[in-house]
Parts: sequence; C-alpha cells; structure tokens
Amino acid sequence: MSILIHTVSIRTDEKSFNWIEDGYVIINEGVFKKIADGKPSEEELTEADEVINGCGKWVCPGLVNTHGHAGMSLLRGYSDDLPLDQWLKEKMWPFEGKLDLEATKAARGLAMVEMIRSGTTTFLEMYHLFMHEFAQDITDAGMRATLMRSMIGLCSKEEQKEKLLEAVEFAKTWHKAADSRIQTMLAPHAPYTCPPEFIEMIVEEAIKLDLPIHMHLAETRKEVREHIQQYHHHPLEHLEKLGFLSEARWLFAHGVHLNEEHIDLLAEYKAGISHNPISNLKLGSGVAPIAEMLQKGVKIGLGTDSVASNNTLDMIEEMRMAAFIHKGIAEDPILIPAEVAIKMATKNGAELLEHEKTGEIKTGYKADFMIIDSHAAHMQPASNRDSHIVYAAKSSDVTDVYVEGLPLMRNKELLTLDEEKIKFEANEHYQRVRSYI
Amino acid sequence: MSILIHTVSIRTDEKSFNWIEDGYVIINEGVFKKIADGKPSEEELTEADEVINGCGKWVCPGLVNTHGHAGMSLLRGYSDDLPLDQWLKEKMWPFEGKLDLEATKAARGLAMVEMIRSGTTTFLEMYHLFMHEFAQDITDAGMRATLMRSMIGLCSKEEQKEKLLEAVEFAKTWHKAADSRIQTMLAPHAPYTCPPEFIEMIVEEAIKLDLPIHMHLAETRKEVREHIQQYHHHPLEHLEKLGFLSEARWLFAHGVHLNEEHIDLLAEYKAGISHNPISNLKLGSGVAPIAEMLQKGVKIGLGTDSVASNNTLDMIEEMRMAAFIHKGIAEDPILIPAEVAIKMATKNGAELLEHEKTGEIKTGYKADFMIIDSHAAHMQPASNRDSHIVYAAKSSDVTDVYVEGLPLMRNKELLTLDEEKIKFEANEHYQRVRSYI
Repeated sequence: MSILIHTVSIRTDEKSFNWIEDGYVIINEGVFKKIADGKPSEEELTEADEVINGCGKWVCPGLVNTHGHAGMSLLRGYSDDLPLDQWLKEKMWPFEGKLDLEATKAARGLAMVEMIRSGTTTFLEMYHLFMHEFAQDITDAGMRATLMRSMIGLCSKEEQKEKLLEAVEFAKTWHKAADSRIQTMLAPHAPYTCPPEFIEMIVEEAIKLDLPIHMHLAETRKEVREHIQQYHHHPLEHLEKLGFLSEARWLFAHGVHLNEEHIDLLAEYKAGISHNPISNLKLGSGVAPIAEMLQKGVKIGLGTDSVASNNTLDMIEEMRMAAFIHKGIAEDPILIPAEVAIKMATKNGAELLEHEKTGEIKTGYKADFMIIDSHAAHMQPASNRDSHIVYAAKSSDVTDVYVEGLPLMRNKELLTLDEEKIKFEANEHYQRVRSYI
Repeated sequence: MSILIHTVSIRTDEKSFNWIEDGYVIINEGVFKKIADGKPSEEELTEADEVINGCGKWVCPGLVNTHGHAGMSLLRGYSDDLPLDQWLKEKMWPFEGKLDLEATKAARGLAMVEMIRSGTTTFLEMYHLFMHEFAQDITDAGMRATLMRSMIGLCSKEEQKEKLLEAVEFAKTWHKAADSRIQTMLAPHAPYTCPPEFIEMIVEEAIKLDLPIHMHLAETRKEVREHIQQYHHHPLEHLEKLGFLSEARWLFAHGVHLNEEHIDLLAEYKAGISHNPISNLKLGSGVAPIAEMLQKGVKIGLGTDSVASNNTLDMIEEMRMAAFIHKGIAEDPILIPAEVAIKMATKNGAELLEHEKTGEIKTGYKADFMIIDSHAAHMQPASNRDSHIVYAAKSSDVTDVYVEGLPLMRNKELLTLDEEKIKFEANEHYQRVRSYI
C-alpha cells in the first residue's frame, strides 16, 4: 500500500529542521519512502495506490504525549480549584475507586478520540487498571503508545509482589506488540509511594527485561519535604544513593522541584523528563526548571497528565504553555523558542518513549504525522509556520492524522473509533460512577 | 425585532452566577427581555419574530477584551523569541512604521474575524493609526468597542498638542456612537513615554470630557527601573504624586511590577487593571500579582494585547491562562477558580470599558452573548460547565455570537464580515508591507 500526498508544506528533518514550502511525500508500507520539494513525476503519481491533494496544508510530525493517565478521562471537570489534599482524597480517589472495566474503557476511548483530534499519534499511559484491555483497544484504534501497569508500594509485600508480577507480565505480553506500535515500561508510582526494596525489585526486573522505568518525581514541594523527612534525601538523590539511577533507563514525570545538582544527576544518568507544564500550574505544583535542564542536555518531552489536572489532552496547548511559561518566569523572551517546543513534543518524546524511527518526517521513518489546515483567521497572515504551530494553532486546525501510514482521521472524520458512541458511553459511565459515590 | 432561543443552558447572573440547565431567552430590540427555566409558552413562541432551537448548547456572556492593538494584527508570527529591545527596534517598529490605511484596515478586519470567532463581543483598541476608519468598520461589523487614539509624548510640544487634539476630537466624535456600541477613552501611552506635563494636559481633557484614561503601566522590570532613575519614583507612585490618580478614572494595562503599596494605591483610587497574562509571559515581562489585587478589591479585566505578543486574540485562552498561571506561581491551586476567570473576562471587562448593562446575561441587559456547542470530545463528560469553559473549551466550540441582539456569527458563519476577502487582503498587505522594509 502506498500513498502520495502532494501540494503540501512539509516540516521535515531531512535537512536539519527545515520546511519544504511546496512538496510531496510518498509513504510505502507505513514508512516515508520519499520527501521532496516540488511536484511528483507522472510515474510517481501512477505508481501510488492513493494520491491525495493536500491543498497547501502542512504535513507535520505527529505529537507525542510523554505522560498521562487516559483511564482517568471521565474526571474532566469533576473537581477543580480545590486544595490538593482535599481534591485527591475527597474527589479523585473515591471516583477512581469505583472505576470498573466499562467506565475505564469509556474513559480511554474518549482520550483516544481527543488525542487523535489534536494531532497526537503516540502517548504514554501509566495506570493500574485494565491495561491489557487498553492495549487491545489501542491496537484496534491504530495509535502508537508506551504502556505500563503503575505500581504503588504502600501495601503488604504480598501485594507488592502481585502488582509487580502483573506489571511484568503485562510488559512482556505487549512489548513490541501491534507491529511494534506498542512499547512497554515498568512504573513504580513515585519515590514517596514505593519503599526502596520495592523499587529495587522493579529495577531488577527492568534490567532483566531491558525496559525503561517511568516514575513521578518531585512534583510538589510538600512531597519533596516529606520525602526528605522520611529518607533524609531529596527523592532524586535517594534514587541515586540507592544505586538505581545507574542501573536502568529512567523517564521521570514532572521534575518540578529540582535544583542544579539534581539537574546534573539527570544529565549524568541520561534520565529524561516529561514536562507537564499545564498540570503543574493547575494543581499549584510550580514550574519545572526546564530551561536549565535543556542547557545541561537533559532530554525533555511534553505531557498532558490526565484531564483531571489539565483539563485536556491537547499537545498543541502543552507546546504553547511550554513556550510561554519559562519566558515569563525567567523574564527572558528567548527561552524555549517555537522550534524547541515542537522538538520536545515530537522527536524528543518519540525517543523518550522508545519508538524508533518516529517523531520526525524523514525518509525511512515511520509515517506518523498530522496535517494542519492553516486557513483559519487565527493562522493569518502566512508568516512563520513554526510560530503559528506553537503560538497560534488550535486542535481544530488538525484535519488528518496518520500512524504508520494508516489514516486515523481524515478531513476531521475519525476512521478507527466510533466517536459518537464513545462520547455517549463516556457520559453514561460518568453518571453511573458518580452515583456510586 | 424579537428572538427566542430555547433548549439551551444559560449562564445567567439573574440568581447570583448560576446556570439554568434547560431554559430559554427572549431578546427584544437588542435587550434580554426574559431569561427563564423550562420551555417557552405557546404565546411566547408565536409572539417572537424568530424562534431558534438551541439544541442544548450553552448561552454565555460575550467575552470582553480589555487591552489590544488590532491595528498590529498583520504582525502575527512576523517575529518571536527575540530579546525585547531587538524585537521592538528591529522588527515591530520598522513594520509598524510602514503601515498605511489599507494595511491597517486589513489587520483590523482580521482581528474582528478572529475575535468574533472566539466569542469576543467587546474589545478595547489603543492605537495611533486610522482610528476614525476603524470606528466606522466596527460600526458596520456590529461589534462593541472602547476606542482611543494612543499618544506617545516623546516629541515636541507642538506634536504633543497635535496628537492630543486628534485624540480629543476622535473621542468626542465617537463617544456613545453606533447606538452606544462605541465608547472612547484618552490614552497616554505610558508614564515612561509621556512627560508629566503632557499627561497633565491629557488628564485635564479627560476630566472635561468625563472620559476614563487607559495607559500601559509597569509592564517590564527594566521600564520600572529606568522610570525610577529618571523620576525617582515607581511609575504608579509618580502618577499619584502628580495628583493624577485622584482626578480621573484609570484603566491600566499590564501592571506586572507592582508591590503591595502599589496595589493599595490601585484599590484606593479605584483604578482597574487589564491583566494580559499571555503577552506578559511571551515577552518575558513576568506575572502580574493578580491574586493580591483581587484580594484588595482591584477590578481586573482580561486582555490579549496584540497578536505580535500572544499570538492570538482568543479570550478563552486568556481566561485559561489567567486561571492557570497564578495557581502555579503561588503553588496554590485554589487561586483564580474558573468562575473568577469568567467574571474577569465578562462582567469586569464590561465595567472597565464602561459599556453599561453588558457583560452578563440578565433581564434588561443588552443581548451580547456567545453560544457554545459542548458536543466535542474535549468537552465530555458533561460535568461542570464553568470548568469546561475555562479549562477545556476552544474557540472552535463557539458557534454563534450576538451583539445587542444582532447575530454576527451563526453556526460558525460570519454575517457582517467577508471573512475570505479579509484573510486574502491580510496576506496581500502583509507581503506588501514586508517588502518595504
């Protein structure tokens, strides 16, 4: 199966992050076979199984969401603007405690619809419920994902072992499944929710399986303070002193409360960070020192976290926030320019989630991309495309999304998910779960 | 002319900021005649000149943008991510210096399209070019606006007088014009660009005309530092010591670098603030102490500033940022809850721009409103509408916009502006002006 899309602008990394003004792409068996300036030849047009006139739209790399909990998607708007403890204990946990398979499935269907509609091709899911079922649904929907069964260790040794067994079994079953569209990780929830011995068991399994580890890190000031009280060290120093940082590949979520030495540790051990600026603001967690991390060569991806703390899964808004917030806080308008925000949301994310040959539009790379229609008033005049993508675009400008050459959305119509049914069911299950509380 | 819109949720201020779940509104001669729960009577349906089935959409107050320069709208994406001085001197000013009537008109047409599409009914324009022509275009487009000829006083006394004469003549001509849809103000650009004697002349005219004064204030740290070097006082103290604060009604834009005493001054003199959080972040200006201002009773509206520093005129995004940023900076998730962000973007803005009986959906108020379609995936499940408007909605959810009972957009079609022509001309003039530099 080959597709040729012509008369498009292309954000390609063929020639070190440049735009082709008016060109075409040829996709063969899910892979970019050719990315070129100008018009395709008669032969190329004839050879392609499908020829699409892009009408001047923009072909851009699909967006990669490096931290989330799609299983929580029924919680959008269920509770906002409360103190963190009250929000968690009185609102989030009681609702999550009632999530059954049907409700979680509905939540994740909704999440996939929203992600595809806003140009996301690849995402990370860290959650404890019904991961096998979600992996199957992702396979069917055609998305790309890195999945993990999250583990909280504040329980008995037996329960810890049970969780780890479940996590390992899930990771083995689904690693490189769905033609490698699914990758897996192991996921101890956080240093403050996992005793050292439990983390050690997880690290050992990660080494055995050659899998990376995803973990929440230093999200709030209170969490860090209490961790220091309990373990005498900042959570990152704690992991280092236990010898864990050197033993595995780490992707941390948040990393808000880190000082220079901590950033040096991240750089030294090549640990990545999922920067989740909107969630960090909305929950009052703070602002992660991303400019400093970039300066020291730490690899940063962007994540939305769940809709309970965002409240969308819109990576365009996440890019925009990442580009805005650090300029404002440091009072320095040159920090995180548009192209850096795009790189974090595409190439970096793909590398951190370990999806090889994705995240860029390049010959030989997997054809994960979105198509942006730049005709809306808020995208005029046609000046700088990178600027428009980060500072002006909206998810409503995304018209098409492909993963590995297969269309998941065409002209704003979803092809692999029954959107109306999903929205209906999300509301049904939201009302049902609420009624249990 | 009367319109009845039924089967809608209504964000009404009839009963202290509540939602009517399923109700109807009757608009007569541009004014809300009735806002009611349930279904209209047969008599009401028969009496209305037009009956619209709202299909469960949300009728919400139109958004009010309290600071902007629509005349700069061709500058979207022209330059970003540069140091402020270089951005202004090498990019903004040379381009603005070449703006002629046609280019400015195209810019403002584009701005009006974008504002209507994102639910804005009322806005402020502070600019020095072609204000009469814009006032006429706004009259024709049916929007509501508060307009002023901005004045920079770094010039000869003769030029100052000329500018003031022009500003006063404009203010007189258009005040309460277009059935009071247009209000005017006087606008000394900023304390650092207007010598005290010039501000004094402007204040005197404002008193004579009973008009408020709009002025940039304490936007950047550098500006405040240099002002103190020159005048020995912070710009706000400077205005107070000169006796100006007590003499007129003030609406300041930005107010980023203010301490507690300055906030006390704002409260004492009932001066308002246009909070422009996105522009303040993008230009690296900082974060205004809005939570502190609200606590002391300072009236806050929200503004986008121009697309050169935003890069949109989308008040939904501005509400969202206002709700996010202060939580994050203060590490306090209860600051600026959704309903406060909405109030700033509607009622407060209307009061600050002195458009009486607008900004709320209330019997006897002018029928300025937007209709939101909540069917998109990112608005599910149907939980909390205020939360969804601030934390999840996008301008693409706005389907209809009315000002004083007249539709400016219906089912996403603009009725008073030729959108395609405007977008075409914006691009033409952008290319033309660029070629002069």
